[in-house]
Amino acid sequence: MATDGLKDMLGRVSLTPVDKAKAILLEALGNTSIETERCSLPDSLDRILSTDLLSPEDLPTHPRSTMDGFAVRAADTFGASSSMPCYLEIDGDVDMGQMPTGEVFQGKCFRIATGGLLPKGSDAVVMFEHTIPVDGKMIEVVKSVGVGINLINRGEDIEQGKPALPQGHLLRPQDLGLLAGLGIAEVDVYRRPKVGILSTGDEIVHWSESPPPGKIRDINSITLSASCTRLGAEVTDYGIASDSEETFFATLERATLENNVVLFSGGSSVGMRDLGERVIEKLGNPGILVHGVALKPGKPVIIGLSNGTAIFGLPGHPVSAMVCFDLFVQPALQLFAGFAQPTTNLTPSITAVIDRNINSAAGRLDFVRVQLQEQENSQPLAIPVLGKSGSISTLSRAHGYFLIDEPAQGLNKGTQVEVHLLS
Amino acid sequence: MATDGLKDMLGRVSLTPVDKAKAILLEALGNTSIETERCSLPDSLDRILSTDLLSPEDLPTHPRSTMDGFAVRAADTFGASSSMPCYLEIDGDVDMGQMPTGEVFQGKCFRIATGGLLPKGSDAVVMFEHTIPVDGKMIEVVKSVGVGINLINRGEDIEQGKPALPQGHLLRPQDLGLLAGLGIAEVDVYRRPKVGILSTGDEIVHWSESPPPGKIRDINSITLSASCTRLGAEVTDYGIASDSEETFFATLERATLENNVVLFSGGSSVGMRDLGERVIEKLGNPGILVHGVALKPGKPVIIGLSNGTAIFGLPGHPVSAMVCFDLFVQPALQLFAGFAQPTTNLTPSITAVIDRNINSAAGRLDFVRVQLQEQENSQPLAIPVLGKSGSISTLSRAHGYFLIDEPAQGLNKGTQVEVHLLS
Repeated sequence: MATDGLKDMLGRVSLTPVDKAKAILLEALGNTSIETERCSLPDSLDRILSTDLLSPEDLPTHPRSTMDGFAVRAADTFGASSSMPCYLEIDGDVDMGQMPTGEVFQGKCFRIATGGLLPKGSDAVVMFEHTIPVDGKMIEVVKSVGVGINLINRGEDIEQGKPALPQGHLLRPQDLGLLAGLGIAEVDVYRRPKVGILSTGDEIVHWSESPPPGKIRDINSITLSASCTRLGAEVTDYGIASDSEETFFATLERATLENNVVLFSGGSSVGMRDLGERVIEKLGNPGILVHGVALKPGKPVIIGLSNGTAIFGLPGHPVSAMVCFDLFVQPALQLFAGFAQPTTNLTPSITAVIDRNINSAAGRLDFVRVQLQEQENSQPLAIPVLGKSGSISTLSRAHGYFLIDEPAQGLNKGTQVEVHLLS
Repeated sequence: MATDGLKDMLGRVSLTPVDKAKAILLEALGNTSIETERCSLPDSLDRILSTDLLSPEDLPTHPRSTMDGFAVRAADTFGASSSMPCYLEIDGDVDMGQMPTGEVFQGKCFRIATGGLLPKGSDAVVMFEHTIPVDGKMIEVVKSVGVGINLINRGEDIEQGKPALPQGHLLRPQDLGLLAGLGIAEVDVYRRPKVGILSTGDEIVHWSESPPPGKIRDINSITLSASCTRLGAEVTDYGIASDSEETFFATLERATLENNVVLFSGGSSVGMRDLGERVIEKLGNPGILVHGVALKPGKPVIIGLSNGTAIFGLPGHPVSAMVCFDLFVQPALQLFAGFAQPTTNLTPSITAVIDRNINSAAGRLDFVRVQLQEQENSQPLAIPVLGKSGSISTLSRAHGYFLIDEPAQGLNKGTQVEVHLLS
C-alpha cells in the first residue's frame, strides 16, 4: 500500500504527516470487534464498559433530607424571618434507616437528620441553624423555605430507565460508586487487549544480562511493556529475535496471530528497517500502511496491519520509540480496548514560555522534551532537555513535552507553549 | 487539640481553612518511617524508590553512531560541500553487535549503522544522506562534520557514579528503561501504604444488598477503596460498623492498629459527626487535629491522628467525600507511600470560561464540578454540573472541576477558570 507524503531530503523515503498516519491507521483498524467478559463491580475499576447501562431504579428511592433540621410543610414557614419567626410544634422524629411513621400536619414538624426520609405531609426541611428552640416541644423558624428545599427528591440523582453510563466508558472510582448506588453488582466489560513485544537488532541483549563488548542491553521492551500495562493491556514478551530473517518472520508471524497489537523495535539502522518492512509485507493482508512519518524524533516508524492485528516497527532509540508509542500505539490500543472517543478532546496542559530559540524544520512535527521551572510573578519556564534521542536518561529527566507543529520553522525565546506532563 | 479558624454562621463550629488543615495534617504526620522491600525491575512499575540510585556504569559504555553513514576523522571532511566534496575511501565495515576491528586512517572511512560502535581513529559520523557513492570503494562527502557529530559518547547518556534516580521517585515506564539500560535488575521500594475503610450510619447497607425501606446502599466504601487502589495502596474493608458506639470504637481501633490510614464515612448527620469526634478523641495520641473546614462541599470532614495512623472522618455525601479525599487523604497517602514532593507543583489544567454567574461565600473554598464544551474560535465553556452533593451521578457526569478561592464572593459569567480533569 503506497502512501503520499513528504519526501526525505534525498527523496528516498516518502514521509507521511503524523495526523495523516494516525488517520490511516485508525481507519484501517475500522470497527474492530472485541470480546467481552463479565466482571464483579470491584474488579471493574479501570475497565471499559461494553454495553450502555441504564438505571434499574430511581436514585434515591424516596425523598431524603440533605440537612440536619426539621421536616416541615413549606407553606407553614412562608414569611418567617428573624424579626417575625413562625412557631412549629415538634410532633415526631425521623429515625435514620427507618421508614418514618406518622405524618407532619399543619403547624407541626419532625426532627430529621441528613439522609433521613421525608415523612408524609412534609415537603421541605428547615436547617437546624435557622431555628431556635423554644422548649422541648416547640421551635421558632427564622427563615422560610420553599417546597423541595434541603431535600433530594425520588429519582433526582438518576431516574429509572435513564442512561447511567455509556458503552466505551472507562470505569473510574466515582463510576463504581454510581453503579453501587444503583445495586449493579456485575458489569460487562471489554477484554483487555493483547500486546506482543519483540526486540530486534544484532547489538541487543536482554537487560538482565551483562552485554559483551559491542552489545547493549535492551531498553525498549521493558519501557514499551510497562507503557502497555499502564493502559490495561496483557503483554507477552517474545524476546529478542535477531538471528535471521526467518527467525524474525516466524516470531513476528506467531505474535501477530496471538495478539491485537505487535510491537517490535531496535531496528534503527536502514538494514533493520528494510528487514522490518519486508517482513510486514510478507505477512500481508494488507501489510504496510505507513513507513516513515514527518516527526522528530520518531521518523523511521513503520505501521502495518495483518489480519486485524496492528503491527508497529518502532525506532530503536528509546526516546523515538516512546514518542511513536504515544502518538500511534496508544490510540490503536485504546481502540482495541473498546475505549470510546471522549466527549471532549481537550487535554490538560501547563502554559509555559521557552527559555531559548528552538529550530524546527518546516513540514515536520517536533516533540520537544522540557523541564519546567516555576518563576515568581510570571509563567513557568520550559527548558529543553538536551540530549540525543538515543539517550534514555533525557526521558527520565524531562517533566513534559510540547509540540512544534508542521508549518513552524522554529520558535523564538519567550514564545508561549503548552506543556503536557510525562506521567 | 483546638484549631483556630472561621466560625459557622451560628458560631457553633470552628472551621479551618483548607490550606491550614492540610498543613496541620502533614506536619503532624511528620517524618513517617516506612518499611521497604526489594522488587524485580518489571514489578517495580509505579512503585516508589526508597534509595538514591547511582549509575553503576557509563551509558553508553562505548561511543556509538546515532546515524546510518560512515565513521570518519572529522578533520578529513573540513570544508567539504556539494560544490567542493571531499573523497574518502571505504576501508571497512562496522558489524552490529561486534567490537570493530581495524582503524580508520586519514582519508579513509568505515561503513557504520545506527548503534554501531565507533572504530578506532574515527571521531564523527557522516550521514549516509550527505554522501554520494563514487564506486564500491569511494564516496564523495558533501557536508563537513565536526568532532563528536552523529555519535553518542561514552557516558554521555549517564556517567558512572552519577545520580540516576532519586529516593521518593515514582518509577514510570521510562525510568524502568533507564534502569534496564544500566543493568539494575532489582530495586528497593517503599511498601505500599495500608488503608482501612469503614462505613457508618444506621441507614447504610452493603451495596450488593437490596436495601429495605429507609435504607440506602453504601456508595463511599467502593469509591474510596478504588481511589486508594489507584494510588497504589492496599485496602482492607472493615464493613459497616453502625450497631453501637462500642462496636464502632472497637472496629476503628482495630483498623487504626492495622493500617497507615483509616477512612470512615457515612456520618453526615450531626449525631454521626459527634460520634466520629468522640471516638477519635477516645483513641487519642493526639486524637483530633481538625474538625470542620471552610470548604464546599466537604465542610464536615474530621481529621485525626492516633499513634501514627491518620484517621479521616469523611462526609457521608459521595461528592463531599471525594472532594475531601482529593484534598486531604491523597497527600497523606502519598506521604505514607514515600512519594517525594515533586520538583514542580505545577498541575496541568484546561483554561475555560464559565457560562453563568456563580455564587460563593467569602472565606470558603468552593469546588465546582463542570462539563466542558469546545467552542469554535474561542476558549471552551465550563458548564457547572448542577445537583446536590448527595448526588453521585454528578461526579460521573462532570469532566472536571475548578476552585473558587476563599476571598472570592463568586465569579461572573465569562470569567476564565482553570479546570482540572476528574480522571
